[in-house]
Amino acid sequence: MNHSNIRVNSQRLWKSLIDLSKIGATEKGGVCRVALTDRDREGRDLVTQWLRDAGMSVRIDQLGNIFGRRPGTSSSRAAVATGSHIDTQPSGGKFDGNYGVLAGLEVVRVLNENNITTSLPVEICVWTNEEGSRFTPVMMGSGGWAGVHTLDALLQRKDIDGIGVGEELHRIGYAGAEPLGPTDQHPTYARYFEAHIEQGPVLEASDKLIGVVTGALGTRWFDVEISGLDAHAGSTPMHLRRDALRAAAKLIDAVHEIGVSSSPESRGTVGSLRVIPNSRNTIPGKVNLTVDFRSENESGLSVMEDRLHSETEKLEKILKVTINVTKVSEFKACEFDSECIQIVEDAANLLQLSNMRLISGAGHDAIHVAKVCPTSMIFIPCKDGISHNEIEEIKPVEAEAGANVLLHAILKAAS
Amino acid sequence: MNHSNIRVNSQRLWKSLIDLSKIGATEKGGVCRVALTDRDREGRDLVTQWLRDAGMSVRIDQLGNIFGRRPGTSSSRAAVATGSHIDTQPSGGKFDGNYGVLAGLEVVRVLNENNITTSLPVEICVWTNEEGSRFTPVMMGSGGWAGVHTLDALLQRKDIDGIGVGEELHRIGYAGAEPLGPTDQHPTYARYFEAHIEQGPVLEASDKLIGVVTGALGTRWFDVEISGLDAHAGSTPMHLRRDALRAAAKLIDAVHEIGVSSSPESRGTVGSLRVIPNSRNTIPGKVNLTVDFRSENESGLSVMEDRLHSETEKLEKILKVTINVTKVSEFKACEFDSECIQIVEDAANLLQLSNMRLISGAGHDAIHVAKVCPTSMIFIPCKDGISHNEIEEIKPVEAEAGANVLLHAILKAAS
Repeated sequence: MNHSNIRVNSQRLWKSLIDLSKIGATEKGGVCRVALTDRDREGRDLVTQWLRDAGMSVRIDQLGNIFGRRPGTSSSRAAVATGSHIDTQPSGGKFDGNYGVLAGLEVVRVLNENNITTSLPVEICVWTNEEGSRFTPVMMGSGGWAGVHTLDALLQRKDIDGIGVGEELHRIGYAGAEPLGPTDQHPTYARYFEAHIEQGPVLEASDKLIGVVTGALGTRWFDVEISGLDAHAGSTPMHLRRDALRAAAKLIDAVHEIGVSSSPESRGTVGSLRVIPNSRNTIPGKVNLTVDFRSENESGLSVMEDRLHSETEKLEKILKVTINVTKVSEFKACEFDSECIQIVEDAANLLQLSNMRLISGAGHDAIHVAKVCPTSMIFIPCKDGISHNEIEEIKPVEAEAGANVLLHAILKAAS
Repeated sequence: MNHSNIRVNSQRLWKSLIDLSKIGATEKGGVCRVALTDRDREGRDLVTQWLRDAGMSVRIDQLGNIFGRRPGTSSSRAAVATGSHIDTQPSGGKFDGNYGVLAGLEVVRVLNENNITTSLPVEICVWTNEEGSRFTPVMMGSGGWAGVHTLDALLQRKDIDGIGVGEELHRIGYAGAEPLGPTDQHPTYARYFEAHIEQGPVLEASDKLIGVVTGALGTRWFDVEISGLDAHAGSTPMHLRRDALRAAAKLIDAVHEIGVSSSPESRGTVGSLRVIPNSRNTIPGKVNLTVDFRSENESGLSVMEDRLHSETEKLEKILKVTINVTKVSEFKACEFDSECIQIVEDAANLLQLSNMRLISGAGHDAIHVAKVCPTSMIFIPCKDGISHNEIEEIKPVEAEAGANVLLHAILKAAS
């Protein structure tokens, strides 16, 4: 049977997005629904009810991940899955995460009202604590499910007030009975597709509605400490200075150039910087700053790291400062499954939606899920690329487009 | 009578410096004797006693400035004066200010033991609150004396706890009866010489013992706010960024270049910088920084200010940021009296001490005094140019050299 003319109900999807955004709504139009708070419980209760209303069976695992399941006709237990998260940043927006969950819900609602029975089951995943703003690590639920972290370690993570993940899960009633991760009963997914706002400016700048996401950038993070000599801004002539902030300025410029030229998708950012003593009339004696390098592959990241070290060695000699560089973390680049990518691209083309392939620069649950099953993602634009902000914004037509791509990707993968 | 062979007593001078430094001594070898505290009172009591022990009459004015007077033979009431301050930074050194007062005391002691009677009276000034770390403005006592500020305004200045200058002067017993500023009874000085540690690295780098100070740099201070757009460091490609910190880096470099090349003694410093939101994986959307320009003349400062504006306009266009520049204060450059400068230089040459002319980059009481009488200063080196720091250090031979120059300058001017 040919389902190529089926489309999501844009108004219903938008209403669900707005209804969910009322839980934890902020004065400035954003949402504060931080993981494992009372607000998170309210959001979970609403979404779980919606999953049940759509005829899905609901399981909750030991880490609070929620799974809604729509049965298929095949004897295979491996489902095609979609989803994302509904926790937000403390001053977050309405769409980050929530969009992926509710686009999945809309797909199921459309399947239901068109009486479509898929061969494979379809599942909607609501992953616990993707944001990581209250409890680290970020992408906790999907990371636990994919075996990146152990359950015990995650349950013992504490927030700034010393309150643990485990106790909060119990308190809000989402410490489920299901074992964490794929099981014989619920094996890893046949395919996983996650719809998400881009959280960047590329689609908007390229005037495309759909991003066919091919993977995620790898990251290497460094702490840099530059030591010079603090001295009086008036009594120290220019040629006798050992100005740590001047060295920092040269390094910021170099990090930008490294980001521009190391690999096609490389990025270099100094996001945080502290000056000591930070006094108007004192030449800074010390600067601490961070370096964030991203690339689509490990060789790109290695080039960037090498260039950072060359640059700091050069600056040490020229500017008479000492520079210590410490690598504080790294995440490998992720390549999504080529068949899943193709399914998403085909769906966008079938729907005649303008689209482009791109790489995610941000972290997503899909990156963990991709470690255990074939995965890709669908991006839609967000206004000015702004996310993690109360003014985060998308248009209903964009929400509709991404959900339609998700619908046809799931139809293809689950039929 | 020829006094050219007379010299100060180096050991006595050094002992006085060390004895005074015990009041408010810190564990790290510095001094904490902040203006108008109990420690300041103890320091004042000791120095006042030393002045009296040296046969001087002591006056204290309404702002707590202390004046020790050694009579001369002439009917003129105009004295030749020297001095500095004995208040320190909260983590200050032993020599900043104290050296100028005690070098003056040593000169009087030498005059006494050699039974030298000068034609003009000789005065030693101990100016209140030069440092300004508890009560602003800096150089309060000399500024009040020179008529730069009114007495009432200064007495009402409050510290961070709301305690006023006037009440603290009363509490420590240094709210004197003498009117503030020159009077008929005590007219402005015939000449004023102030000995001081350089608080910079020029003498040390030039291997000279004596700095013949020709004036002080003028200053213009600016606050700069750079506005871009904060965005995700991963999902925002390099060419779509509006990175406020990258613009700041370019500006820091430009301020340095402006300092290097605007006038022979020009200086440009970014001492303080704040990044918003200052997060490792967020491109900075806003940076606030300060610019400190110094030059030996107003035309140099104007060149610097013009170049700053050209640079920010250029950066606004190239980097898609908005830059607001606000001038927050300015002090005019000061030229000391050419005859006073010559007297100091002649004294250094008479003593066959290596010397060079230089300009003060820091503020000193002499800069205010110079507004009402012929003035110059004598600098001696300090280790690594470090001051306003507990590790501030000078050698006894340097203290001796500066005091000998002061002695012969005073002998010349007062004879």
